Amino acid sequence: MSDIEIKRGLKDVYFATSEASFIDGNIGKLLYRGYNIDDMARNSTFEETVYLLLFGKLPTAKELLDFDAQLRANRTLPREVLQVIEIVQASHPMDVLRTGCSALGCLEPESATRDQHQVADRLLAAFPSMLLYWYQFHAGGKRIETETDDPSMAAHFLHLLSGKPADEMRIRALDASFILYAEHEFNASTFAARITASTLADFYSAITSGIGTLRGPLHGGANEEAMALIERFQTPDEAEAGLMDMLARKQLVMGFGHRVYKNYDPRARIIKQVADQVFEVTGKDPMLNIALELERIALEDDYFVKRRLYPNVDFYSGIMYEAMGFKPEMFTVLFAIPRTAGWLAQWQEMLTDPEQKIARPRQVWIGHDTRPFVPIEQRGTGVVTR
Amino acid sequence: MSDIEIKRGLKDVYFATSEASFIDGNIGKLLYRGYNIDDMARNSTFEETVYLLLFGKLPTAKELLDFDAQLRANRTLPREVLQVIEIVQASHPMDVLRTGCSALGCLEPESATRDQHQVADRLLAAFPSMLLYWYQFHAGGKRIETETDDPSMAAHFLHLLSGKPADEMRIRALDASFILYAEHEFNASTFAARITASTLADFYSAITSGIGTLRGPLHGGANEEAMALIERFQTPDEAEAGLMDMLARKQLVMGFGHRVYKNYDPRARIIKQVADQVFEVTGKDPMLNIALELERIALEDDYFVKRRLYPNVDFYSGIMYEAMGFKPEMFTVLFAIPRTAGWLAQWQEMLTDPEQKIARPRQVWIGHDTRPFVPIEQRGTGVVTR
Repeated sequence: MSDIEIKRGLKDVYFATSEASFIDGNIGKLLYRGYNIDDMARNSTFEETVYLLLFGKLPTAKELLDFDAQLRANRTLPREVLQVIEIVQASHPMDVLRTGCSALGCLEPESATRDQHQVADRLLAAFPSMLLYWYQFHAGGKRIETETDDPSMAAHFLHLLSGKPADEMRIRALDASFILYAEHEFNASTFAARITASTLADFYSAITSGIGTLRGPLHGGANEEAMALIERFQTPDEAEAGLMDMLARKQLVMGFGHRVYKNYDPRARIIKQVADQVFEVTGKDPMLNIALELERIALEDDYFVKRRLYPNVDFYSGIMYEAMGFKPEMFTVLFAIPRTAGWLAQWQEMLTDPEQKIARPRQVWIGHDTRPFVPIEQRGTGVVTR
Repeated sequence: MSDIEIKRGLKDVYFATSEASFIDGNIGKLLYRGYNIDDMARNSTFEETVYLLLFGKLPTAKELLDFDAQLRANRTLPREVLQVIEIVQASHPMDVLRTGCSALGCLEPESATRDQHQVADRLLAAFPSMLLYWYQFHAGGKRIETETDDPSMAAHFLHLLSGKPADEMRIRALDASFILYAEHEFNASTFAARITASTLADFYSAITSGIGTLRGPLHGGANEEAMALIERFQTPDEAEAGLMDMLARKQLVMGFGHRVYKNYDPRARIIKQVADQVFEVTGKDPMLNIALELERIALEDDYFVKRRLYPNVDFYSGIMYEAMGFKPEMFTVLFAIPRTAGWLAQWQEMLTDPEQKIARPRQVWIGHDTRPFVPIEQRGTGVVTR
């Protein structure tokens, strides 16, 4: 077995071809179907980005109008899904989203009259309604109407959050963060969705896998964990001391560094600019000062600089979302909702790739050699040891 | 890019070590932690098999007694999960199971007072109750009590199905099929559960991924598809003609052949013997005669024999379950429930492997080169083309 190399985390294993996004970690470059992430965040909208990811081209004005209308028409949830959300409301919102997605798959399954594209539109439009319905019911027992006239998903989202139409700055900031989170090659959640799709399972199953996988603290949970780190400290001095202490103990510090970017994560640079604009309007609170102190250390301290542990996109999105009024427990869902676009795009790729096969990697057996079965009477007496 | 090899389906990629099960496809051998599948199916019970997979050893009499009691104590579902099942009842039972699992994760999340082993016992014991509650409510509007005194999961299962304690032959047959389906290296659903676990997501998320992945017709859906094939024909002659026609069209015939067994699948040999005992009691109906004709062709016809397209475990389990009174749409769940043991065992392995990393394979980019963003006014007029 000595010549067998175990590919932990599937590092450097090429799994499939893709046309969705491209990362060059050495120079901090991210493309969505050939378009630079900077251009997209600056000039595009989330809806346009979704269209691009799903159809491979930027939409014409007419196409975008139709697509927007299609998404808007899908915002209302079936009564049954609302009931399910109410039943499981005292849970982490990622668990609620996972359950709501699965339940929607029961109620509106794929069929001859409901094709992939309709399901895609449905889930994209339904998730914000799902999360905000949960939030308002759980926080205040309110059963809100999830249909609004807001033109964009970001505006719809903020409208349902505060109960009134949001200002342009907040809409633009949320929209930009959605664009940045939309797609990112074969990260773990997208990969999980692809594995599920490899058995020709339905779309809801694939997205449910994506949500469950994104939920982990090493993946989508990172922005919530970064916020938890910030909340641990009362003052900037305490933050500095605390961070150094964590480093001394070699603890993993969430919100800093990124596996695929050897250089700066381009999304972090963009979201930092967007966040700064948000802070100008919302003002700086004590928590933000702590975050900025952590940022300063990460950008200046030798330990961080050498290991390229710069503040990442999750660090900035966390503090920005907090300033905009989102609770930390909602952060991961704010990642999951836009990433649904990437899951969708790659699920389509998986289904239409004629060379794709059901996933079945190999294991290295380190267990027992063949041994004879021993009747229970001959196993001695023992106690449960867990 | 010419030196890059894409590992479709991750064929021959070693992903991790495992001690759970071992397959030697060349000689048709399957071990559970060193014990031969033939020995297990003949001498063990499903509960004992689960204990073996989770704890790495066969239990002593006392340990098995405690473990059985622990599972029995977990059969009753929270009222909220029953409500969710009622809400989504008009769905495929795999969708119901996926949703029920996710909902249970909302209601009974992992916590400091509810550890992995408790969650494992809970899910194993809860799934049969979930499926049968669904079945009885959906089929006849009955809200059944899901607690029984039956000593085994198989007995409990059949009791809830027919409303009365089952005979020994049926219990033993279902139990044997559960043993055979419990664990099978890195099949797609187990692998999906491992990917979800790689982000340190919770257990319910991992199992939800497993269920969604098993749902696909190329994986767990195979036994249902095999039954659908059998049901297509009225007579053995029709079956022969139909099968030959499918081969001429090079269609995939579900229920025949298996990816990892170059030789005979040992599980198929065992389940065939068990099924024969069932047929002796239930008698042979016209459908069984068609199945036996298909089996005869697969074992005798040159085309099948050369390609090793022998009837597989799903073929025999399908006709056996049918004879025992299960509806074909329940077949995949009858696979998912015992496989939960394997998902559990491997989820534990994933969490306790200190070298394990979050999954992130690579892609081969075949998309657009970097291109400049084009403002929407300059994109011309167009229509939505899907």
